[in-house]
Amino acid sequence: MTIVLGIDPGSRMTGFGVVELRNKELHHITHGVLRLGNRPMPVRLRDIFTGVRELIDEHDVDRFAIETSYVGNNPQTAIKLGQARGVAIAAAAMCDLPVAEYSPREIKKTTVGTGNAAKDQVQFMVKTLLGLANEPAHDSADALAVAICDLNASRFSYAADQTIHTP
Amino acid sequence: MTIVLGIDPGSRMTGFGVVELRNKELHHITHGVLRLGNRPMPVRLRDIFTGVRELIDEHDVDRFAIETSYVGNNPQTAIKLGQARGVAIAAAAMCDLPVAEYSPREIKKTTVGTGNAAKDQVQFMVKTLLGLANEPAHDSADALAVAICDLNASRFSYAADQTIHTP
Repeated sequence: MTIVLGIDPGSRMTGFGVVELRNKELHHITHGVLRLGNRPMPVRLRDIFTGVRELIDEHDVDRFAIETSYVGNNPQTAIKLGQARGVAIAAAAMCDLPVAEYSPREIKKTTVGTGNAAKDQVQFMVKTLLGLANEPAHDSADALAVAICDLNASRFSYAADQTIHTP
Repeated sequence: MTIVLGIDPGSRMTGFGVVELRNKELHHITHGVLRLGNRPMPVRLRDIFTGVRELIDEHDVDRFAIETSYVGNNPQTAIKLGQARGVAIAAAAMCDLPVAEYSPREIKKTTVGTGNAAKDQVQFMVKTLLGLANEPAHDSADALAVAICDLNASRFSYAADQTIHTP
Protein backbone atom coordinates (compact mmCIF):
# COMPACT_ATOMS: atom_id res chain seq x y z
CA MET A 1 0.00 0.00 0.00
CA THR A 2 1.50 3.30 -1.12
CA ILE A 3 -0.03 6.78 -1.02
CA VAL A 4 1.35 9.44 -3.36
CA LEU A 5 0.79 13.19 -3.34
CA GLY A 6 1.13 14.72 -6.80
CA ILE A 7 1.55 18.47 -7.12
CA ASP A 8 1.08 20.81 -10.09
CA PRO A 9 2.70 23.97 -8.75
CA GLY A 10 1.79 27.54 -9.62
CA SER A 11 2.03 30.90 -7.88
CA ARG A 12 -1.74 31.57 -8.23
CA MET A 13 -3.11 28.03 -8.15
CA THR A 14 -1.34 24.88 -7.03
CA GLY A 15 -3.14 21.67 -7.98
CA PHE A 16 -2.93 18.59 -5.79
CA GLY A 17 -3.97 14.96 -6.14
CA VAL A 18 -3.66 12.06 -3.71
CA VAL A 19 -3.76 8.52 -5.11
CA GLU A 20 -3.27 5.19 -3.39
CA LEU A 21 -1.96 1.92 -4.79
CA ARG A 22 -3.72 -0.92 -2.96
CA ASN A 23 -3.84 -4.56 -4.10
CA LYS A 24 -2.09 -3.46 -7.30
CA GLU A 25 -4.97 -1.11 -8.10
CA LEU A 26 -5.16 2.66 -8.20
CA HIS A 27 -7.58 4.34 -5.79
CA HIS A 28 -8.51 8.01 -5.81
CA ILE A 29 -8.26 9.65 -2.40
CA THR A 30 -8.69 13.36 -3.04
CA HIS A 31 -7.81 16.21 -5.37
CA GLY A 32 -8.20 19.96 -5.49
CA VAL A 33 -6.49 23.30 -5.82
CA LEU A 34 -4.75 25.58 -3.33
CA ARG A 35 -6.07 28.98 -4.41
CA LEU A 36 -3.36 31.51 -3.64
CA GLY A 37 -4.97 34.52 -5.27
CA ASN A 38 -3.42 37.94 -5.55
CA ARG A 39 -2.01 38.29 -2.08
CA PRO A 40 1.68 39.23 -1.50
CA MET A 41 4.03 36.52 -2.77
CA PRO A 42 5.49 35.65 0.68
CA VAL A 43 1.97 34.87 1.94
CA ARG A 44 1.26 32.67 -1.08
CA LEU A 45 4.53 30.79 -0.65
CA ARG A 46 3.80 30.27 3.04
CA ASP A 47 0.38 28.90 2.13
CA ILE A 48 1.87 26.44 -0.38
CA PHE A 49 4.25 25.21 2.32
CA THR A 50 1.49 24.86 4.90
CA GLY A 51 -0.97 23.37 2.43
CA VAL A 52 1.42 20.68 1.19
CA ARG A 53 2.42 19.77 4.73
CA GLU A 54 -1.23 19.48 5.80
CA LEU A 55 -2.06 17.21 2.83
CA ILE A 56 0.90 14.96 3.73
CA ASP A 57 -0.18 14.72 7.36
CA GLU A 58 -3.90 14.34 6.70
CA HIS A 59 -3.58 11.55 4.12
CA ASP A 60 -0.54 9.81 5.61
CA VAL A 61 1.35 10.27 2.34
CA ASP A 62 4.36 8.02 1.56
CA ARG A 63 5.76 9.67 -1.57
CA PHE A 64 5.74 13.03 -3.33
CA ALA A 65 5.66 13.49 -7.13
CA ILE A 66 5.99 16.61 -9.26
CA GLU A 67 6.36 17.45 -12.94
CA THR A 68 9.77 18.65 -14.17
CA SER A 69 8.86 22.18 -15.05
CA TYR A 70 7.78 23.08 -18.49
CA VAL A 71 9.56 26.36 -18.96
CA GLY A 72 8.63 28.85 -21.64
CA ASN A 73 10.94 31.60 -22.78
CA ASN A 74 10.03 34.09 -20.09
CA PRO A 75 12.57 34.00 -17.23
CA GLN A 76 10.27 36.07 -14.97
CA THR A 77 7.57 33.41 -15.32
CA ALA A 78 10.20 30.72 -14.69
CA ILE A 79 11.27 32.42 -11.45
CA LYS A 80 7.68 32.56 -10.19
CA LEU A 81 7.03 28.94 -11.10
CA GLY A 82 10.36 27.95 -9.53
CA GLN A 83 9.43 29.67 -6.28
CA ALA A 84 6.13 27.78 -5.96
CA ARG A 85 7.79 24.53 -7.01
CA GLY A 86 10.73 24.89 -4.62
CA VAL A 87 8.42 25.51 -1.67
CA ALA A 88 6.28 22.44 -2.44
CA ILE A 89 9.40 20.25 -2.74
CA ALA A 90 10.89 21.68 0.47
CA ALA A 91 7.64 20.92 2.35
CA ALA A 92 7.82 17.28 1.18
CA ALA A 93 11.53 17.04 2.04
CA MET A 94 10.84 18.49 5.52
CA CYS A 95 8.43 15.54 6.00
CA ASP A 96 11.20 13.13 4.87
CA LEU A 97 9.21 11.96 1.84
CA PRO A 98 10.97 10.63 -1.25
CA VAL A 99 10.56 13.20 -4.05
CA ALA A 100 10.20 12.01 -7.65
CA GLU A 101 10.15 14.17 -10.77
CA TYR A 102 8.65 13.20 -14.12
CA SER A 103 8.73 15.01 -17.43
CA PRO A 104 5.42 16.08 -19.03
CA ARG A 105 6.15 13.48 -21.73
CA GLU A 106 6.53 10.62 -19.22
CA ILE A 107 3.34 11.66 -17.44
CA LYS A 108 1.31 11.79 -20.65
CA LYS A 109 2.77 8.51 -21.84
CA THR A 110 1.83 6.76 -18.59
CA THR A 111 -1.70 8.12 -18.39
CA VAL A 112 -2.77 8.53 -22.03
CA GLY A 113 -0.29 6.22 -23.75
CA THR A 114 1.34 8.89 -25.90
CA GLY A 115 3.80 11.63 -24.95
CA ASN A 116 2.04 14.15 -27.19
CA ALA A 117 -1.39 13.92 -25.58
CA ALA A 118 -3.48 17.09 -25.22
CA LYS A 119 -4.57 18.48 -21.84
CA ASP A 120 -8.15 17.25 -22.19
CA GLN A 121 -6.98 13.72 -23.02
CA VAL A 122 -5.10 13.72 -19.69
CA GLN A 123 -8.28 14.84 -17.91
CA PHE A 124 -10.31 12.11 -19.58
CA MET A 125 -7.81 9.35 -18.79
CA VAL A 126 -7.38 10.47 -15.17
CA LYS A 127 -11.16 10.27 -14.78
CA THR A 128 -11.20 6.80 -16.37
CA LEU A 129 -8.18 5.35 -14.53
CA LEU A 130 -9.48 6.49 -11.14
CA GLY A 131 -13.16 5.80 -11.82
CA LEU A 132 -14.24 9.38 -11.12
CA ALA A 133 -17.75 10.61 -11.88
CA ASN A 134 -16.44 13.78 -13.56
CA GLU A 135 -13.27 15.01 -15.19
CA PRO A 136 -11.18 16.97 -12.70
CA ALA A 137 -10.16 20.54 -13.65
CA HIS A 138 -6.81 21.02 -15.40
CA ASP A 139 -4.64 21.80 -12.37
CA SER A 140 -5.85 18.92 -10.26
CA ALA A 141 -5.97 16.53 -13.27
CA ASP A 142 -2.26 17.23 -13.86
CA ALA A 143 -1.54 16.67 -10.17
CA LEU A 144 -3.44 13.34 -10.19
CA ALA A 145 -1.63 12.37 -13.42
CA VAL A 146 1.82 12.84 -11.89
CA ALA A 147 0.76 10.78 -8.86
CA ILE A 148 -0.51 8.01 -11.18
CA CYS A 149 2.75 8.21 -13.14
CA ASP A 150 4.75 7.74 -9.94
CA LEU A 151 2.65 4.77 -8.81
CA ASN A 152 2.90 3.11 -12.19
CA ALA A 153 6.67 3.64 -12.26
CA SER A 154 7.00 2.06 -8.80
CA ARG A 155 4.51 -0.71 -9.73
CA PHE A 156 6.69 -1.63 -12.68
CA SER A 157 9.91 -1.37 -10.72
CA TYR A 158 8.46 -3.51 -7.90
CA ALA A 159 7.56 -6.06 -10.57
CA ALA A 160 11.11 -5.90 -11.93
CA ASP A 161 12.48 -6.37 -8.40
CA GLN A 162 10.29 -9.39 -7.87
CA THR A 163 11.55 -10.90 -11.11
CA ILE A 164 15.10 -10.41 -9.90
CA HIS A 165 14.44 -11.93 -6.49
CA THR A 166 12.29 -14.85 -7.69
CA PRO A 167 14.39 -17.75 -8.97
CA MET B 1 16.65 48.39 17.43
CA THR B 2 16.00 46.34 14.31
CA ILE B 3 17.74 43.16 13.17
CA VAL B 4 17.59 42.25 9.46
CA LEU B 5 18.48 38.98 7.75
CA GLY B 6 19.60 39.51 4.14
CA ILE B 7 19.71 36.51 1.80
CA ASP B 8 21.46 36.02 -1.53
CA PRO B 9 19.80 32.79 -2.70
CA GLY B 10 21.34 30.11 -4.88
CA SER B 11 20.84 26.37 -5.34
CA ARG B 12 24.52 25.59 -4.59
CA MET B 13 25.39 28.43 -2.21
CA THR B 14 23.01 30.71 -0.37
CA GLY B 15 24.69 33.74 1.20
CA PHE B 16 23.36 35.27 4.39
CA GLY B 17 24.09 38.41 6.38
CA VAL B 18 22.61 39.67 9.65
CA VAL B 19 22.84 43.38 10.43
CA GLU B 20 21.43 45.38 13.31
CA LEU B 21 20.39 49.03 13.43
CA ARG B 22 21.07 50.31 16.95
CA ASN B 23 21.23 53.98 18.00
CA LYS B 24 20.89 54.90 14.32
CA GLU B 25 24.10 52.99 13.52
CA LEU B 26 24.67 49.79 11.56
CA HIS B 27 26.20 46.87 13.46
CA HIS B 28 27.45 43.67 11.87
CA ILE B 29 26.15 40.54 13.59
CA THR B 30 27.17 37.67 11.32
CA HIS B 31 27.50 36.55 7.73
CA GLY B 32 28.31 33.37 5.85
CA VAL B 33 27.17 30.90 3.25
CA LEU B 34 24.89 27.86 3.39
CA ARG B 35 26.88 25.38 1.28
CA LEU B 36 24.36 23.11 -0.41
CA GLY B 37 26.77 21.23 -2.65
CA ASN B 38 25.78 18.62 -5.18
CA ARG B 39 23.24 16.67 -3.18
CA PRO B 40 19.74 15.99 -4.54
CA MET B 41 17.71 19.19 -4.99
CA PRO B 42 15.02 18.30 -2.39
CA VAL B 43 17.75 17.94 0.27
CA ARG B 44 19.27 21.29 -0.69
CA LEU B 45 15.88 23.02 -0.58
CA ARG B 46 15.16 21.47 2.82
CA ASP B 47 18.52 22.76 4.06
CA ILE B 48 17.78 26.29 2.83
CA PHE B 49 14.47 26.21 4.70
CA THR B 50 16.06 24.87 7.89
CA GLY B 51 19.09 27.16 7.62
CA VAL B 52 17.04 30.34 7.17
CA ARG B 53 14.73 29.40 10.03
CA GLU B 54 17.69 28.71 12.34
CA LEU B 55 19.28 32.08 11.49
CA ILE B 56 16.00 33.85 12.26
CA ASP B 57 15.65 32.07 15.62
CA GLU B 58 19.29 32.35 16.65
CA HIS B 59 19.63 36.07 15.97
CA ASP B 60 16.11 37.13 16.92
CA VAL B 61 15.61 38.60 13.45
CA ASP B 62 12.88 41.25 12.92
CA ARG B 63 12.88 41.62 9.14
CA PHE B 64 13.88 39.65 6.04
CA ALA B 65 15.38 41.20 2.88
CA ILE B 66 16.18 39.67 -0.51
CA GLU B 67 17.26 40.92 -3.93
CA THR B 68 14.68 40.91 -6.73
CA SER B 69 16.18 38.24 -8.89
CA TYR B 70 18.54 39.14 -11.62
CA VAL B 71 17.40 36.78 -14.35
CA GLY B 72 19.51 35.97 -17.37
CA ASN B 73 18.07 34.45 -20.52
CA ASN B 74 18.18 30.84 -19.37
CA PRO B 75 14.78 29.70 -18.02
CA GLN B 76 16.32 26.53 -16.50
CA THR B 77 18.66 28.69 -14.42
CA ALA B 78 15.73 30.92 -13.50
CA ILE B 79 13.73 27.90 -12.25
CA LYS B 80 16.62 26.76 -10.03
CA LEU B 81 17.16 30.25 -8.65
CA GLY B 82 13.40 30.62 -8.14
CA GLN B 83 13.26 27.39 -6.16
CA ALA B 84 16.01 28.48 -3.74
CA ARG B 85 14.51 31.95 -3.50
CA GLY B 86 10.96 30.73 -2.87
CA VAL B 87 12.08 28.45 -0.06
CA ALA B 88 14.03 31.23 1.69
CA ILE B 89 11.03 33.57 1.45
CA ALA B 90 8.62 30.85 2.68
CA ALA B 91 10.87 30.20 5.70
CA ALA B 92 10.76 33.92 6.59
CA ALA B 93 6.99 34.06 6.05
CA MET B 94 6.51 30.97 8.26
CA CYS B 95 8.26 32.98 11.01
CA ASP B 96 5.86 35.91 10.37
CA LEU B 97 8.68 38.27 9.35
CA PRO B 98 8.03 41.19 6.99
CA VAL B 99 9.70 40.38 3.65
CA ALA B 100 11.21 43.21 1.60
CA GLU B 101 12.62 42.99 -1.92
CA TYR B 102 15.12 45.40 -3.46
CA SER B 103 16.45 45.59 -7.00
CA PRO B 104 20.20 45.14 -7.58
CA ARG B 105 20.24 48.83 -8.59
CA GLU B 106 18.67 50.00 -5.31
CA ILE B 107 21.09 47.85 -3.31
CA LYS B 108 24.16 49.17 -5.12
CA LYS B 109 22.90 52.72 -4.87
CA THR B 110 22.41 52.42 -1.09
CA THR B 111 25.76 50.79 -0.37
CA VAL B 112 28.10 52.22 -3.01
CA GLY B 113 26.19 55.36 -4.05
CA THR B 114 25.72 54.38 -7.69
CA GLY B 115 23.40 51.82 -9.26
CA ASN B 116 26.11 50.65 -11.67
CA ALA B 117 28.67 49.63 -9.05
CA ALA B 118 30.81 46.53 -9.66
CA LYS B 119 30.73 43.47 -7.37
CA ASP B 120 34.07 44.32 -5.70
CA GLN B 121 32.89 47.86 -4.95
CA VAL B 122 29.95 46.34 -3.07
CA GLN B 123 32.34 44.12 -1.11
CA PHE B 124 34.56 47.08 -0.25
CA MET B 125 31.67 49.30 0.87
CA VAL B 126 30.06 46.53 2.94
CA LYS B 127 33.40 46.08 4.73
CA THR B 128 33.67 49.86 5.30
CA LEU B 129 30.06 50.47 6.37
CA LEU B 130 30.14 47.60 8.88
CA GLY B 131 33.73 48.15 10.07
CA LEU B 132 34.83 44.62 9.14
CA ALA B 133 38.48 43.58 9.21
CA ASN B 134 38.22 41.90 5.79
CA GLU B 135 35.99 42.04 2.73
CA PRO B 136 33.34 39.31 2.88
CA ALA B 137 33.14 36.88 -0.05
CA HIS B 138 30.72 37.74 -2.89
CA ASP B 139 27.68 35.73 -1.73
CA SER B 140 27.74 36.98 1.83
CA ALA B 141 28.69 40.54 0.77
CA ASP B 142 25.54 40.64 -1.39
CA ALA B 143 23.47 39.30 1.49
CA LEU B 144 24.89 41.93 3.89
CA ALA B 145 24.31 44.61 1.22
CA VAL B 146 20.60 43.80 0.91
CA ALA B 147 20.27 43.87 4.72
CA ILE B 148 22.00 47.28 4.82
CA CYS B 149 19.72 48.49 2.00
CA ASP B 150 16.66 47.45 4.01
CA LEU B 151 17.90 49.17 7.19
CA ASN B 152 18.75 52.36 5.31
CA ALA B 153 15.34 52.38 3.63
CA SER B 154 13.64 52.06 7.03
CA ARG B 155 16.08 54.54 8.62
CA PHE B 156 15.14 57.15 6.03
CA SER B 157 11.45 56.43 6.31
CA TYR B 158 11.65 56.68 10.12
CA ALA B 159 13.37 60.04 9.65
CA ALA B 160 10.61 61.14 7.29
CA ASP B 161 7.99 60.03 9.82
CA GLN B 162 9.68 62.01 12.56
CA THR B 163 9.67 65.11 10.40
CA ILE B 164 5.97 64.66 9.80
CA HIS B 165 5.14 64.15 13.48
CA THR B 166 7.38 66.90 14.90
CA PRO B 167 5.80 70.36 14.69
